[in-house]
Amino acid sequence: MLSIEEVRKHNNQGSCWVIIHGSVYDLSEFLDKHPGGAASILRYAGKDATEEYDAIHPPNTIEKTLPRARHLGKVEQSIKATSEPKAATTGVIGTLRGPIPIEMCLNLNDLELAAKDVLSERAWVYYSSAAQDRMTFCHNLDDWRRLRFRPRIMRNVQKVNTRRTILGFQSSLPFFIAPCALAKLGHPDGELCLARGAARANIPYCPSNSSSVSHEALTECLASEASGGSLFFQLYVKRSQEETLENIRRARALGYKALVITVDTNVVGIREDDDRFKIREALKNGQHHVSPWRAALSNPDPEAVLRGPHSSTLNWEDLHWIEDAWQNAGPICLKGILTAEDARIACDFGMDAIYLSNHGGRQLDSATSALGALMEIRRLCPEVFSRCQILLDGGIRRGGDILKALCLGAAGVGLGRPFMYALSAYGTEGVHRAIEMLNDEIETAMRLLGATSLDDLSPRMVNTREFEMLMAREIPELESIKSRL
Amino acid sequence: MLSIEEVRKHNNQGSCWVIIHGSVYDLSEFLDKHPGGAASILRYAGKDATEEYDAIHPPNTIEKTLPRARHLGKVEQSIKATSEPKAATTGVIGTLRGPIPIEMCLNLNDLELAAKDVLSERAWVYYSSAAQDRMTFCHNLDDWRRLRFRPRIMRNVQKVNTRRTILGFQSSLPFFIAPCALAKLGHPDGELCLARGAARANIPYCPSNSSSVSHEALTECLASEASGGSLFFQLYVKRSQEETLENIRRARALGYKALVITVDTNVVGIREDDDRFKIREALKNGQHHVSPWRAALSNPDPEAVLRGPHSSTLNWEDLHWIEDAWQNAGPICLKGILTAEDARIACDFGMDAIYLSNHGGRQLDSATSALGALMEIRRLCPEVFSRCQILLDGGIRRGGDILKALCLGAAGVGLGRPFMYALSAYGTEGVHRAIEMLNDEIETAMRLLGATSLDDLSPRMVNTREFEMLMAREIPELESIKSRL
Amino acid sequence: MLSIEEVRKHNNQGSCWVIIHGSVYDLSEFLDKHPGGAASILRYAGKDATEEYDAIHPPNTIEKTLPRARHLGKVEQSIKATSEPKAATTGVIGTLRGPIPIEMCLNLNDLELAAKDVLSERAWVYYSSAAQDRMTFCHNLDDWRRLRFRPRIMRNVQKVNTRRTILGFQSSLPFFIAPCALAKLGHPDGELCLARGAARANIPYCPSNSSSVSHEALTECLASEASGGSLFFQLYVKRSQEETLENIRRARALGYKALVITVDTNVVGIREDDDRFKIREALKNGQHHVSPWRAALSNPDPEAVLRGPHSSTLNWEDLHWIEDAWQNAGPICLKGILTAEDARIACDFGMDAIYLSNHGGRQLDSATSALGALMEIRRLCPEVFSRCQILLDGGIRRGGDILKALCLGAAGVGLGRPFMYALSAYGTEGVHRAIEMLNDEIETAMRLLGATSLDDLSPRMVNTREFEMLMAREIPELESIKSRL
Amino acid sequence: MLSIEEVRKHNNQGSCWVIIHGSVYDLSEFLDKHPGGAASILRYAGKDATEEYDAIHPPNTIEKTLPRARHLGKVEQSIKATSEPKAATTGVIGTLRGPIPIEMCLNLNDLELAAKDVLSERAWVYYSSAAQDRMTFCHNLDDWRRLRFRPRIMRNVQKVNTRRTILGFQSSLPFFIAPCALAKLGHPDGELCLARGAARANIPYCPSNSSSVSHEALTECLASEASGGSLFFQLYVKRSQEETLENIRRARALGYKALVITVDTNVVGIREDDDRFKIREALKNGQHHVSPWRAALSNPDPEAVLRGPHSSTLNWEDLHWIEDAWQNAGPICLKGILTAEDARIACDFGMDAIYLSNHGGRQLDSATSALGALMEIRRLCPEVFSRCQILLDGGIRRGGDILKALCLGAAGVGLGRPFMYALSAYGTEGVHRAIEMLNDEIETAMRLLGATSLDDLSPRMVNTREFEMLMAREIPELESIKSRL
Repeated sequence: MLSIEEVRKHNNQGSCWVIIHGSVYDLSEFLDKHPGGAASILRYAGKDATEEYDAIHPPNTIEKTLPRARHLGKVEQSIKATSEPKAATTGVIGTLRGPIPIEMCLNLNDLELAAKDVLSERAWVYYSSAAQDRMTFCHNLDDWRRLRFRPRIMRNVQKVNTRRTILGFQSSLPFFIAPCALAKLGHPDGELCLARGAARANIPYCPSNSSSVSHEALTECLASEASGGSLFFQLYVKRSQEETLENIRRARALGYKALVITVDTNVVGIREDDDRFKIREALKNGQHHVSPWRAALSNPDPEAVLRGPHSSTLNWEDLHWIEDAWQNAGPICLKGILTAEDARIACDFGMDAIYLSNHGGRQLDSATSALGALMEIRRLCPEVFSRCQILLDGGIRRGGDILKALCLGAAGVGLGRPFMYALSAYGTEGVHRAIEMLNDEIETAMRLLGATSLDDLSPRMVNTREFEMLMAREIPELESIKSRL
Repeated sequence: MLSIEEVRKHNNQGSCWVIIHGSVYDLSEFLDKHPGGAASILRYAGKDATEEYDAIHPPNTIEKTLPRARHLGKVEQSIKATSEPKAATTGVIGTLRGPIPIEMCLNLNDLELAAKDVLSERAWVYYSSAAQDRMTFCHNLDDWRRLRFRPRIMRNVQKVNTRRTILGFQSSLPFFIAPCALAKLGHPDGELCLARGAARANIPYCPSNSSSVSHEALTECLASEASGGSLFFQLYVKRSQEETLENIRRARALGYKALVITVDTNVVGIREDDDRFKIREALKNGQHHVSPWRAALSNPDPEAVLRGPHSSTLNWEDLHWIEDAWQNAGPICLKGILTAEDARIACDFGMDAIYLSNHGGRQLDSATSALGALMEIRRLCPEVFSRCQILLDGGIRRGGDILKALCLGAAGVGLGRPFMYALSAYGTEGVHRAIEMLNDEIETAMRLLGATSLDDLSPRMVNTREFEMLMAREIPELESIKSRL
Repeated sequence: MLSIEEVRKHNNQGSCWVIIHGSVYDLSEFLDKHPGGAASILRYAGKDATEEYDAIHPPNTIEKTLPRARHLGKVEQSIKATSEPKAATTGVIGTLRGPIPIEMCLNLNDLELAAKDVLSERAWVYYSSAAQDRMTFCHNLDDWRRLRFRPRIMRNVQKVNTRRTILGFQSSLPFFIAPCALAKLGHPDGELCLARGAARANIPYCPSNSSSVSHEALTECLASEASGGSLFFQLYVKRSQEETLENIRRARALGYKALVITVDTNVVGIREDDDRFKIREALKNGQHHVSPWRAALSNPDPEAVLRGPHSSTLNWEDLHWIEDAWQNAGPICLKGILTAEDARIACDFGMDAIYLSNHGGRQLDSATSALGALMEIRRLCPEVFSRCQILLDGGIRRGGDILKALCLGAAGVGLGRPFMYALSAYGTEGVHRAIEMLNDEIETAMRLLGATSLDDLSPRMVNTREFEMLMAREIPELESIKSRL
Repeated sequence: MLSIEEVRKHNNQGSCWVIIHGSVYDLSEFLDKHPGGAASILRYAGKDATEEYDAIHPPNTIEKTLPRARHLGKVEQSIKATSEPKAATTGVIGTLRGPIPIEMCLNLNDLELAAKDVLSERAWVYYSSAAQDRMTFCHNLDDWRRLRFRPRIMRNVQKVNTRRTILGFQSSLPFFIAPCALAKLGHPDGELCLARGAARANIPYCPSNSSSVSHEALTECLASEASGGSLFFQLYVKRSQEETLENIRRARALGYKALVITVDTNVVGIREDDDRFKIREALKNGQHHVSPWRAALSNPDPEAVLRGPHSSTLNWEDLHWIEDAWQNAGPICLKGILTAEDARIACDFGMDAIYLSNHGGRQLDSATSALGALMEIRRLCPEVFSRCQILLDGGIRRGGDILKALCLGAAGVGLGRPFMYALSAYGTEGVHRAIEMLNDEIETAMRLLGATSLDDLSPRMVNTREFEMLMAREIPELESIKSRL
């Protein structure tokens, strides 16, 4: 039994102890390996970090991750920490007033506003942040608006069919919940809300590899829902191949239906809102040597400049061992493709699907939008549409946006942030309501477009002229792209 | 004689009684058939709804619509209801201060501002609302501004002729009053103001199928005006074919001069401002189970998800029985066409006219503008111009906008909201003034353009380059459109 | 000798007497012929109008214009009127505080701000107003900004030559003062400031046909300046041919060097700011029957709907008698051309020069800019450049704008409003300073462009791509324009 | 020994004495030759100018420049002047509160805001000012944003190489510190901060010809830094050929590694913010005859209208004597090229490098951006890329902007203002931090783009469609440009 006084002494980078659920852990050597960065641990050096820890980690993460030798034993008086009010455990504030009545939310933007009202600053910043000048984030939203519908009239649209097969799953609607980490920041039930919402509506959900609810709990939750749904496994390829293999095996064992390999995170993007928040917090705590940037110039250790915990060596050849580990447990999809060239290579590598995405504008600022990539593929390598399924995400906020993507050949689309806002404000009910909104918007727009089935949607139903002018009509050095792999 | 206490008990969805002009009606089974939705009736369940009812229905609507068996008889004390101040009967507030002097209104936008000052929130929301993000509403206004005039000089323009034949009627001006419902929300005389204004200026008026003044009263009003004018009948095809046929027969009997079949409302668009207003009102009344969205997902009854009272099965074949019922009583026009393809099909079906419209941006958000459709037709199927008359509406606010439409081949244009604002602020005088404004703007612009007759207007008088760049220069898969029906 | 009481009785449209400089005039029959409209006279019916009259008319205008029979004689007590403070005589307010020091004005926009500070509302409104939604006014300013310079380096630019021959006059700079009426509204010396400023800088000045200083005074002023300058005569073709002929003869007699025939005012444009001001003033005076619009609909008299005093029948044939009257007294120029077609016709009619202008955006709103017209001519009928001189105005605020126009083939440009603001704030000194500013800007930009003479300016020195995209690259029905007259 | 009373009498243009470091100088005849203009000296006529002088001149400038005969000797009591607080000596205010903590600055824009907080108005105005309407300044920033990245995935990017040879120097990063004058206005150490920062990061620094720290001090500083770096000499060609030759010889003697000849300043641009500041100061001092503009119109002396101290006769032939004087001491580069034509001529003249620049938008307003010029060269004379190195500057604020320039063929880029802001707020540490930021941004963006070496960057990695549409797709009279020298 360690005394609280003893723990308090280990409050710095040299010796960093932390109390979680009454146990003391020596994290000194783990600091640099922490996916969330050293700074977020150092804030709790010598202190009880239970609340913060619970908000973003699946249970027992530390027990499983940290070598036994660093488990230092129990601490006295640790009961106090868990007796603090539950609300503070998550990032949610405002339990007193709460969000506006859910009836007043008519669309996904309303859910975002409702969430903004109740989320802690930390959670809001994490969910809403995007890379640098937010240019790509803004393009994601704006680009959909540059397409105009060409609606057809005088068609019997009494019954419309919104079903679409996505990564092998017969979804009731042509969209899925895209991977977003740390749902517990927004709601105590975290990702469970998303799993329940998706199951009830019979749409797929692709939890983040770094789900703050354990994947075991998510699969269990889905199994207990009678209604449907499906889970896809998002894979982050880590620096440690073994860790990656373990993740794949676990996903297979848990019965995940598809593997979605994220390929646009060899380093984590520069999200300044996040960094600003961390720096403000650090300065409040008297820590002045915060350095969110990692200039190779000033870092003798080349590893230290690699932002985030992901593999920076991932390349096409790695697909072989990943595929081997997955053992044909379901379709494989590459998430993060943004060029016609890579779409073609992915086909050549036998991918079942490609997923056009710029990671919600959180990675490379100024990168093109998924819509830009979709248009490129249409022009430069249209055969990709018949060789594999194309999914996409980014900036989708309306049923009409979804239909535009489908008109241009996407098989289905993902939405991320809107669902995080929905669960933050209203939990599972919010997720369900968000799906209902999109359901209504999709059906109404289909009817007004003159389409009774998603297969009726065609490129002729959207005028892409304005967008093409900006983006995809001519690609630099078109010929050489065509002649290349 | 029913007691007021008895009536008050029937205040819910299960049993919903309502008092109108001293009579009690059981609307329990009518709730789902009400074109304006159940919610607007339920607000008056167990209460006197006379004022609200009068504001939007032609007299005796309920007597004619509701089965006899649901007429429950007279109620005591109902006199009280009608003794309340008249102002509250309509949506107009501010009788004390009233609008700014009409002399200060120089253009249609001024009339809108004047109306906004005096209209009730409810009326303002109803008139001004548009679908979802108002993208199409905004395109409607902006697109006209993207055309620049190319005025010709040194022509004798002392006398200009603004006459144009619209749907067979020799109009003194190249525009008409487009269908808008519920004029009584804005003024106690409702649509009568529009009929009078149009008659005095000798331009056509196409009342809404759902006019809040009866069609009988409108035709009578027109007959009593010595000056001129003409009424066109806007037809909403209802779910009940019999009701539709009855409407057509009635229009024919009343001597309407043309039939304008609205074809873009198989469901009613998602107008969030309207929904927000209804929800706020409902929450004020303690009703928490408002659900403006109708997700098929959560509605076992497929009918329940169809927004609005219109037919969702309307298709080209239906034109046959509609034509039969109309018995060649005048030209037939399809309102709501937005693509070259449908323009061509309408010609092939022998329509006398097509009416390019996106319903004032109230139906499918992100749909193209009428101007976009007009440009498309010019490029893809110019023969349509010689095969039938092309009308259009949407975003017209200036005489110059009208001339732009005519330069590009439209026979005439409709204006809706501006006239609703004109009557709301100033009644018949406002409608007259709005027409005068447009008359002056048209003549001045014609002279400055070097045109003495509307037939002088030509595509050469507008530079469409900026707009074409955005919209119509190339249509996706142009060839296949051309080769298609 | 008439008593003041007697005069006061004649205060309405039926009998309208007005006192000017102690004499009484019966203007009852002149009301409808007044170029400035009846309303501005009726405000002084039965009153002394001396101050207002002086502010905008050359001396003795009324004596010369009104038939002798309507000169009713002297009035008692009229001395009082002229003893009122001089400041009120002009539109200038704020003699107490005055404008900011002229040293603080670095460019033409500064002069506008300085003028706005000191001008009466009436004068500000008159100078700054433009047609309807001010779209063309804004295009005028914005279009210049869409061109980017392509400056050349490594050229000896120590000496630059800014001389350019404009309408036969060897101007020291490639611009002139464009016609604007009513300079006395801004400064008691009115147009004399412009004549002096132009003379001192040796640039041409084209006074308005409706100069508030008499043309005799202007020519006398110029003659007394040793330095140079030249006057061009702007001709408004009036409804009365005789009046027009008289104007031409007078210009010739006074030695005007060129005739600038304005051809874009068959009616006066709808300038709502002007109308709003007049209506506010009328309502203040209790006049409720103001009607700034002139709908043919409501006017039995077709003449009444023609806005303004100009001929609405002016056509190409009229050029013959105008030319005859001018008797080759100097070059003839048509002002107000905006299309390639009319530029070509003007050449065919032997005009020495054409003047591209949309009248400062005051006539047809949404008309193209002079720059748009210039680009059109370059593409569609480039031979015009060699057949006649091309001048233009509209939106020029910088020396760089002038060089852009010259690069694209204009011989010279006019500036109107900036000089009115300059004289309003600082009189002749302001006009001189405005010319100095442009002189400095032109020389600096020439040097930085690598041009030592205006003849070095070439289309290669501007990148017109952005503007062409919007405006002039393709004209609707290009072929037929080319083949036409 | 002169008395202070005696000095005070010489306080005007006719006789202007000034005290600097206790010595009196007669500047009456130097007024017109002062590179910073006469006004800035006249403010100190008859007074002690030591502080102001020190802030912007290298030590002993006056001793070396002014003829001996004008050195009038010592003054009594001059000690007082130097005993004033040091802070006032530089343009920096706010030593009490200082800038925000440097940790809170995440990007170059943050450094600008931090600097704005602490800089004196004078320094802020000097650094931030740009020509006239700041159009070119804004284009510089915006144009980079019009390019979208096309990132490639699945490439091993663990190690990235950011080295690039710039003007013969092996730089650790593909950018350098561009010339900006008067760093002492921002920080007492002035340009030394830039030299130190560049040396530590091993990137080149090109001090301004008019460095406020002497070039001797700069080279000495660099020599004392063990780490690296390199100095390039920016040459302003002065009116006096001898002065220019002296500058070149000095640069050679001091071991500068390259000669960067600035060719876009035959006159200094019209920077109105600067002028406004000077005028406000002059008016405060009671000087009313300030005339920032130099209209040839009003200046009999043609020299007087030439803004600034630079040669206005510089032309291609001058390169011969400049080259002779430089004696092959290193690469020669022309800075200020903006057209394909001049890029080609520079090649033909054997330049080692060309430097596309519009001088930070400070010279010709409305001139194209360096990016526009780069695109032009790609299209019209791509052989230039293989014949000489292309550098550029203007509007670069992100590592991503640098990569875009490199993708399109630039060898390296310069940044000016951001470094001035960095040193103003934080001295050498700020400069270092700015480089670190860019280092991190470049490496992160390279990894996310899929590039491990700068040589991997290719035009295919940016979609230039939007920008090309505006700027470079078609150049006016393309053919003639191609056929020309």
